[in-house]
Amino acid sequence: MERLQQQMEFIAEVDKLKKIGRQSYLTDSSRKENDAEHSWHLAMMAIFLSEYAKEEVDVLHVISMVLIHDLVEIDAGDTYAYDTEGNKSKRAREEKAAERIFNILPEDQAKKVWDLWEEFEANETKEANFANALDRVQPIMLNHKSDGKAWAEHGVALDQIMSRNVNVEKGAPKLWEYALENFIKPNVGKAIKE
Amino acid sequence: MERLQQQMEFIAEVDKLKKIGRQSYLTDSSRKENDAEHSWHLAMMAIFLSEYAKEEVDVLHVISMVLIHDLVEIDAGDTYAYDTEGNKSKRAREEKAAERIFNILPEDQAKKVWDLWEEFEANETKEANFANALDRVQPIMLNHKSDGKAWAEHGVALDQIMSRNVNVEKGAPKLWEYALENFIKPNVGKAIKE
Repeated sequence: MERLQQQMEFIAEVDKLKKIGRQSYLTDSSRKENDAEHSWHLAMMAIFLSEYAKEEVDVLHVISMVLIHDLVEIDAGDTYAYDTEGNKSKRAREEKAAERIFNILPEDQAKKVWDLWEEFEANETKEANFANALDRVQPIMLNHKSDGKAWAEHGVALDQIMSRNVNVEKGAPKLWEYALENFIKPNVGKAIKE
Repeated sequence: MERLQQQMEFIAEVDKLKKIGRQSYLTDSSRKENDAEHSWHLAMMAIFLSEYAKEEVDVLHVISMVLIHDLVEIDAGDTYAYDTEGNKSKRAREEKAAERIFNILPEDQAKKVWDLWEEFEANETKEANFANALDRVQPIMLNHKSDGKAWAEHGVALDQIMSRNVNVEKGAPKLWEYALENFIKPNVGKAIKE
């Protein structure tokens, strides 16, 4: 039962992801979402939007990546995409977190999560490209649905959005085209105005 | 672009799952969890505990079911497992919700979600058995980690827990054995006391 006990401890530990806040508002603007909700939303997108991946992807592999991609934030916290300073120290903080959290699992599964996380971060495989594209499109969609509130709050400008979101085009060109027309352009004015 | 627009509308609509409250407390007892967090947690369990399924399962299929299994609660609300009255009207309320929410999607994907939801509810395939087992074990684990608070609040008694959770044994006998010893027995006294 020792193996199962380690696995259950991990399952209980990752409950803390529900307490890690993000900068995106829910579509009804009532509050900001958390990392567990965000990860669930990405997994839903992986299921229903996989036909838009640039190359055909292994959907289970994409989902596995998006479900675990933010676990390190349990210790390292969420770093906002447009926070230049925070992003400099991000990698070191997250590696330390991965070391602690992933190793609660039995060795074979700890390795599996490490590999998934590294693959997502490196963003070099077609599955990681698609997972990263979803991870960019979801907050852009939420920002639009909540009337541009998150970008306005942070004074995010168009060039920041465009340079950061080139990854969407890499993993899912049609989603990029859609997001640009429907989610980005209508909110650019609001962002710059602030 | 019409297909993608329907899919994106669905992805935005299901954001509301983050507002549907459940009766389980987070492990730190600070607040109750919501359906999106719960669904993410089940998907994590599907990845890391699939070796305990009674028969070998298609993990992507299990995950697809657990990710969507509570969407109908966006309209129908969460019915607590031990609420006898609420459970009588549950099916009718949920079918109406499914009709509205699933049909936001293009026809082929609406059918896919319907089939997944019906399969989960019927609980007859090995994937549904395992998914339902996870859906029972997760709140039992949370109840234990939050010191039996949810069961105590509702005055849930041992016979209710045992009859309801026979499904865990059906889909994942080793998880049942573990949950009974580690999550249920230590909290039975607390539940009955209230």
